[in-house]
Amino acid sequence: MAQQITLYLAQICPAAHRVEIVLAEANVTNHTRYEIEIGPNKPKWFTEKVNPAGLVPAITYGGPKVSPNQPSPDSIKIGESLIISEFIADLYPACNLIPSDPVHRAKMRQFMDAVMTKYVAAYAGVLIHGKPFEELYTALEWLQNMLPSAENTAGFAVGSGEEFTLADVAVATLFARMLIWMKMDLGAFEEGEGRKAYAYLHDSGKFVRLLKQFEAVKARESWKKTYDEDMITEAYKIQLAAFRAGAA
Amino acid sequence: MAQQITLYLAQICPAAHRVEIVLAEANVTNHTRYEIEIGPNKPKWFTEKVNPAGLVPAITYGGPKVSPNQPSPDSIKIGESLIISEFIADLYPACNLIPSDPVHRAKMRQFMDAVMTKYVAAYAGVLIHGKPFEELYTALEWLQNMLPSAENTAGFAVGSGEEFTLADVAVATLFARMLIWMKMDLGAFEEGEGRKAYAYLHDSGKFVRLLKQFEAVKARESWKKTYDEDMITEAYKIQLAAFRAGAA
Ligand SMILES: N[C@@H](CCC(=O)N[C@@H](CS)C(=O)NCC(=O)O)C(=O)O
Ligand SMILES: N[C@@H](CCC(=O)N[C@@H](CS)C(=O)NCC(=O)O)C(=O)O
Repeated sequence: MAQQITLYLAQICPAAHRVEIVLAEANVTNHTRYEIEIGPNKPKWFTEKVNPAGLVPAITYGGPKVSPNQPSPDSIKIGESLIISEFIADLYPACNLIPSDPVHRAKMRQFMDAVMTKYVAAYAGVLIHGKPFEELYTALEWLQNMLPSAENTAGFAVGSGEEFTLADVAVATLFARMLIWMKMDLGAFEEGEGRKAYAYLHDSGKFVRLLKQFEAVKARESWKKTYDEDMITEAYKIQLAAFRAGAA
Repeated sequence: MAQQITLYLAQICPAAHRVEIVLAEANVTNHTRYEIEIGPNKPKWFTEKVNPAGLVPAITYGGPKVSPNQPSPDSIKIGESLIISEFIADLYPACNLIPSDPVHRAKMRQFMDAVMTKYVAAYAGVLIHGKPFEELYTALEWLQNMLPSAENTAGFAVGSGEEFTLADVAVATLFARMLIWMKMDLGAFEEGEGRKAYAYLHDSGKFVRLLKQFEAVKARESWKKTYDEDMITEAYKIQLAAFRAGAA
């Protein structure tokens, strides 16, 4: 019998959302979901007993049956969204989220690495620190250049796009949230800049390939089951308004 | 027949050293090594045709036989030391650098992630930016707490330590260079601080488990074949002296 999986998450969190998509792709339905209140009121036991980094997502795997807020020392603990995602994809290889060809696998990893370093930094730069949108566009172009396309069939492309892999999952949960805060015009930027960026992304013709990838992710059942735009929009109304006021 | 592998590296680079160890563990001997002069004189073709990030290590894999400074558009290009390392370990599974148990694999990845985020940041913080050594000790303790030990047989341990994995490779090349610059007392810190840190690491009794891991790595043939302490020491004399002078 499969071991228990408890997922600690926050629904607005793009990192936790990755794990939810992977669980859905793997047809895992008997896991336990436990919402963590992130921020200053985060429960102490979470950092002490589940993830010393204090971040969602985290999972416990195996061990005795316990209630999620009393984690057992005897379960395995894993943190970091992409590591958890790969772990679950490894446990359920039929989900086919990891290419079997080592070259494609390496390219998937390069894409994920670019998401976790370049894209995350540029995203937070604009949203939280009020840095120029240009850095975000540069990061998005960098990602796009890694996607296979008519012009880029070899070289630095990733497996992502033709196959559906963890690389697609990694970028899509951030991309979706970026579109929301741009459209809502909420973040540490001047009023109007978010809406302008939203229009630029769609109308400049510069991000066609990336938008096409995102559409492909949105079309999947695993996305529809795990993404609640209204809920995130409501949460952002409260959370993101603070960035503009507090921005430098 | 196996495809060609060309490794672009700099011998002082801890990231490139990881790939050299993995190639040695995989008994690959027919690859091409090509030293890149990193820094301002880095050849343009390297960034244009091999690694758009401009970093070593990078590899080309497959494609026609060409000279390394005229890379073919038809070879696969892969960057990032740990992605290249995992790729080579995937191509040569007999090297056994990736645990077959998904749990151990996930723990290996968590350890590598902590190396690439926490340890790298703290290391550069002290060496290049003159930040307090405390942050480096904290990062080292964080890593050590992930290692399996008598007190930590479950929970947040990594596979690393009992098995030899990519996690051991990931940390060791940095650890070795850290010991050199501490012993040489060169970096963006006050004179004497490096030597003091070197002594503290060995004499405080706080890093026994981590030092033991490092000894295990050093005992391997793959380490002996790829590590030239004298060469690195000589290069550091020139390179690191500038940090103290230029430090804030
Ligand atoms: N690199 C991590 C990032 C996770 C992360 O940043 N999680 C945020 C929420 S999206 C969090 O838990 N923050 C803790 C807090 O705000 O208390 C991953 O990919 O899992
Ligand atoms: N995260 C990268 C880091 C590689 C890196 O920082 N390489 C340095 C040398 S150790 C480099 O190529 N620097 C380029 C330069 O200085 O021109 C990896 O692990 O491969």
